[in-house]
Amino acid sequence: MGELRVRSVLVTGANRGIGLGFVRHLLGLPNPPEWVFAACRDPKGQRAQELQNLASKHPNLVIIPLEVTKPASIKAAAASVGEHLKGSGLNLLINNAGMLVYKTLDAETQEDMSQVYATNTIGPLLLSQAFLPLLKKAAQGSPGSGLSCSKAAIINMSSYAGSIQDVYLWEYGQALSYRCSKAALNMLTKCQSLGYREHGILCAAFHPGWVKTDMGGTIEDKTRVTVDVSVRGMLNVISSLSEKDTGTFLDWKGKVVPW
Amino acid sequence: MGELRVRSVLVTGANRGIGLGFVRHLLGLPNPPEWVFAACRDPKGQRAQELQNLASKHPNLVIIPLEVTKPASIKAAAASVGEHLKGSGLNLLINNAGMLVYKTLDAETQEDMSQVYATNTIGPLLLSQAFLPLLKKAAQGSPGSGLSCSKAAIINMSSYAGSIQDVYLWEYGQALSYRCSKAALNMLTKCQSLGYREHGILCAAFHPGWVKTDMGGTIEDKTRVTVDVSVRGMLNVISSLSEKDTGTFLDWKGKVVPW
Repeated sequence: MGELRVRSVLVTGANRGIGLGFVRHLLGLPNPPEWVFAACRDPKGQRAQELQNLASKHPNLVIIPLEVTKPASIKAAAASVGEHLKGSGLNLLINNAGMLVYKTLDAETQEDMSQVYATNTIGPLLLSQAFLPLLKKAAQGSPGSGLSCSKAAIINMSSYAGSIQDVYLWEYGQALSYRCSKAALNMLTKCQSLGYREHGILCAAFHPGWVKTDMGGTIEDKTRVTVDVSVRGMLNVISSLSEKDTGTFLDWKGKVVPW
Repeated sequence: MGELRVRSVLVTGANRGIGLGFVRHLLGLPNPPEWVFAACRDPKGQRAQELQNLASKHPNLVIIPLEVTKPASIKAAAASVGEHLKGSGLNLLINNAGMLVYKTLDAETQEDMSQVYATNTIGPLLLSQAFLPLLKKAAQGSPGSGLSCSKAAIINMSSYAGSIQDVYLWEYGQALSYRCSKAALNMLTKCQSLGYREHGILCAAFHPGWVKTDMGGTIEDKTRVTVDVSVRGMLNVISSLSEKDTGTFLDWKGKVVPW
């Protein structure tokens, strides 16, 4: 696997956890992107402090306000990114923002189901629609005919918890709203791969591992991985993706995860 | 495959299409259920005329008002069914109500995604929660230790269109909101099978075929099946389901559909 080389990338949910890990690793690449757009809900807030610190050191990092459940916010984010790119396209959209609610099957509510779906599934759909013109532009402006993440790609942060076949970690947490939203996100990814192939855009879903983040919970388990290991692994895999990989569901080591 | 013998069954979306087909076939069995509960949004309306005609001839058919996106309506329906059953349980819940919106990937909206998910995914979840006490009662009151639909079961009407692996009929209609909702419904089914096995409740998802209904559209295709063939097939399969089949996704002929 080679090193990822992209001119521009947008990461959502970028102020902490895996999102922040992506931003750090991208900025630290030997050939970092010209633009790293880090989207989060409240760029000026306390929870974006680390992003702010990074931005003060890296002029290629731009923090973008974004609420993935609000179409007007998404539209404004796309316009802002477009202005920075000054006519060039966006190579890589990483739909990482997500939420997790732990409830049992019996205690699950209409409100949680709806809210988690809005964030984890509809959000990535709307983001991809809004950034499609910039992704197309990046694909058109890149040499070669095959698909790759250096050219143009949508990476949806899914989860093995959304594998219908394996229902990963059921005993740890039923979290139905999350599992359903991620199964649906996998379907979205597959449909995007079918719809956007002709535009030169690669689409893939990732399981980042059971990562040591706030979202991942506090249980100690030897299978858990650090943000660093997860993100380095995913960036390695992302750098190696080609035509044959569009529409797939992969873990941070590049292994195919069953639907 | 034997003939289905259940004491009581509830079918949602029962006023037309596949739901009405289920009601007709159940009433026409050599040993029909003591109770067939046919749920629909507007039992007194013009679109429930055929159900009304059937009810006038079959005293074991009870029409129940139900709006699957309204928790209060679901609660009232469960209470009403409970009253009719006079202390016995409900053997079979067929979550058939659903909706389909044809839009392309690019034209899909937040509103449609949300509404279709509420109807096709959250609805079956809430229905199953509300009827769980009656399903448990049926399981407890039935002899034998294995699972079966004669004992207690939840059947979720899914679709091959919700198969992430195959994305059935993509060329015919992208219908992303529908596909995502059905992939999520498949996840729900799998989770229900894990959660309700201990209660003696079998859970399975079905692809009814590309059925000649209003929802199925007007395209002529040799693979399309009539409501009659689809429902007869599914009832045959349902009658034969056992322990090993809980958590599976089957078509109207009993063939496993890939997730």
